[in-house]
Amino acid sequence: MSYSAPEQFANVTVACKANIYFDGKVVSHALTLADGSKKTLGLIFPGSFKFDTAAPERMEIIAGECRVRLAGQGDWIGFAAGTWFDVPGNSFFEIVVESGIAEYVCSFG
Amino acid sequence: MSYSAPEQFANVTVACKANIYFDGKVVSHALTLADGSKKTLGLIFPGSFKFDTAAPERMEIIAGECRVRLAGQGDWIGFAAGTWFDVPGNSFFEIVVESGIAEYVCSFG
Repeated sequence: MSYSAPEQFANVTVACKANIYFDGKVVSHALTLADGSKKTLGLIFPGSFKFDTAAPERMEIIAGECRVRLAGQGDWIGFAAGTWFDVPGNSFFEIVVESGIAEYVCSFG
Repeated sequence: MSYSAPEQFANVTVACKANIYFDGKVVSHALTLADGSKKTLGLIFPGSFKFDTAAPERMEIIAGECRVRLAGQGDWIGFAAGTWFDVPGNSFFEIVVESGIAEYVCSFG
């Protein structure tokens, strides 16, 4: 079976106020699922950004495209809608959006 | 009792993909509540925008500030976090954000 990006999440609690990073070039809304797990739904406008991780996270790109470089890796890897990457905890990643808007679902833990 | 802006919504279904308007200067995520009612959680970046309504809607400003002019009204009215305005169905409103990011909860029907 091929991977399919999630379209919606049911039975969640959503925070009304967004998380705003880099003067609004990255914004997200936080979800808590019924099992207590946390996700964010976000948008990334054009630019180059570095994010630190506490918990491990999976970033699923659900629209647009971006390039990503994980900590300690020399290569940038392109991700388009319908692809994903994992970031270890206590690490970081760099992400570049050249044009348009990349949208993501980030899952923690 | 004074009005208090909502902080979160529980037991909702949320669409992962955002609604993107005006090249991303207005973005929102759509919610469906347990009773079937619809809301969006959104952000408005600086600019001047006109929105048409189908159903009546209530716009609660939960962060930042904006100016609004309803259809057929000459005056612009300022709204800050913790205030709201109602828009009739089959109408429109103009909204201006001068700086920063205005965040809203829009409730339909």
